[in-house]
Amino acid sequence: MSDAPDLAAIREAAGRIAAHVKRTPVFTSSMLDGRAGAQVFCKAENLQKVGAFKFRGAANAVFSLPDDAAARGVATHSSGNHGAAVALAARLRGIPAYVVMPHDAPAAKRAAVAHYGADIRACRPGLGSRERALDDLIAATGAQVIHPYNDHRVIAGQGTAALELLEECAGLDALLVPVGGGGLLSGTAIAGKGLVPGIRIIGVEPRQADDAWQSLTTGRRVIVDSPDTVADGLRASLGELTFAIIRRHVDEIVRVEEAAIVAAMRFVWERMKLVIEPSAAVPVAALLEGAAGVAGLRVGVILSGGNVDLQAALALMAT
Amino acid sequence: MSDAPDLAAIREAAGRIAAHVKRTPVFTSSMLDGRAGAQVFCKAENLQKVGAFKFRGAANAVFSLPDDAAARGVATHSSGNHGAAVALAARLRGIPAYVVMPHDAPAAKRAAVAHYGADIRACRPGLGSRERALDDLIAATGAQVIHPYNDHRVIAGQGTAALELLEECAGLDALLVPVGGGGLLSGTAIAGKGLVPGIRIIGVEPRQADDAWQSLTTGRRVIVDSPDTVADGLRASLGELTFAIIRRHVDEIVRVEEAAIVAAMRFVWERMKLVIEPSAAVPVAALLEGAAGVAGLRVGVILSGGNVDLQAALALMAT
Repeated sequence: MSDAPDLAAIREAAGRIAAHVKRTPVFTSSMLDGRAGAQVFCKAENLQKVGAFKFRGAANAVFSLPDDAAARGVATHSSGNHGAAVALAARLRGIPAYVVMPHDAPAAKRAAVAHYGADIRACRPGLGSRERALDDLIAATGAQVIHPYNDHRVIAGQGTAALELLEECAGLDALLVPVGGGGLLSGTAIAGKGLVPGIRIIGVEPRQADDAWQSLTTGRRVIVDSPDTVADGLRASLGELTFAIIRRHVDEIVRVEEAAIVAAMRFVWERMKLVIEPSAAVPVAALLEGAAGVAGLRVGVILSGGNVDLQAALALMAT
Repeated sequence: MSDAPDLAAIREAAGRIAAHVKRTPVFTSSMLDGRAGAQVFCKAENLQKVGAFKFRGAANAVFSLPDDAAARGVATHSSGNHGAAVALAARLRGIPAYVVMPHDAPAAKRAAVAHYGADIRACRPGLGSRERALDDLIAATGAQVIHPYNDHRVIAGQGTAALELLEECAGLDALLVPVGGGGLLSGTAIAGKGLVPGIRIIGVEPRQADDAWQSLTTGRRVIVDSPDTVADGLRASLGELTFAIIRRHVDEIVRVEEAAIVAAMRFVWERMKLVIEPSAAVPVAALLEGAAGVAGLRVGVILSGGNVDLQAALALMAT
């Protein structure tokens, strides 16, 4: 297994994917600043290709493969943003992408992955079935698995969002990002501490999916199984690689309630006119609740993605 | 009455309001390009202050007043984006803003205008009552009325959005903007033809509110009374000043159906992750329907605003 990426690895990833990713804009909002009591700079990764930062990591992994390995294709069993990201990155490199997906996956997810040209392989529902199907696929094709977060190439790619944010906004005191499997938080922490050693790196997660908080508190990696949170992108628990990086570089994990996540999502849609998914609202919730301890500071936030079913979002925000 | 603004007047407006307006970003979308069969550059005025281009015109009018007149304040009976825009511009100049509003106006509209510090004066519902209340107010205060579109200072301010778009995106062949009272279309036409004489200026309006199309077709200003369209920002008919400018500088008015407007709004929310109001979706609808005759061209579009009740918008898009 390769060493954990450092700032140089993130810079290298940035160069590798520069021609493919969007350099997303950074937004400010006087209303958000007022509510947060801080100067907030929001990096809009909801406007990234495939609608999420996930494309950065997938692109770095796909484009760092040697030609012979790449020719056999890449594979994943993620049917969410990572699946779409792998599919698009593979298409851009001109290699096959295999996405294993349960046959009862929502039509919208299947359509998103199919849209980017992936070869979808149906399996029975359940993580076990998905993993077995992926193993069989790899045995048959020789494709490279690209894990959604427990992969140093992916982590280095995710760190490029923070790299861009820190290049664009001088003097940030803290970075706030959501934590699911920890790929974005790991990459952000490496980029952040590498460029600005004194910067505070704060991960934010739903209290109902607080495996990262538990892991950092107890000092051992805790798995929270099938957590019940609206932030569907944050249901994964930390991996071994991301836990090691987060333990070393992250200052704090802050937790927010479900109602605060929904309120933050509504705030960003209504006031900032940006469609974000619930996961992306999680760090904003910490700011609006004053839970991040960043009053008076200059704070960078990564709005991680914007893929959401509009009607489902309506139902959430109507309550 | 002053002469119609020219390019120099729009440049002057741009300088006057530069410190107050946001220079909004321009977005592209490969999915939009594919559907439109054109290269499309979207100027995101939904991200402008108060959530709409209207702030440009209001700011230009407010900041061009001589000190003695300004001290008596400004007034309008618009309770929509223009009302909020006048309120904020006045607050930034430190002068009173009076907004006449029927006592049964939706609470959200009242709250938006109140948020920017305007002095709200309630009146009975109906245009007649609003105009009388405004007249009484002016008699009592000496405030300057700022009309939402039939005002050359406002028109010049609205033209600054196209000025920025044309400065940022070279070689545009056409500009598409929505038409309500015609302030945005007038300012866009003056800026567009002034900078790029051969550029096509295309106004787009709901077929159910097609006063501009009727006016240009018949050669006389037609008023469509209380049109029934989801594009609530486009229910006004052209004014005398805007009609004169549009007759002279606009190449074409294109009309779109209600269902196409809703579909375009959904497209921008889902695919481009931007919250826009129905009025802003109107030119996008013309592109998605292939109704604008711009296949193969480089096209600029002004996404005019993003102020929408989330529940109402989602209910629209659910149908």
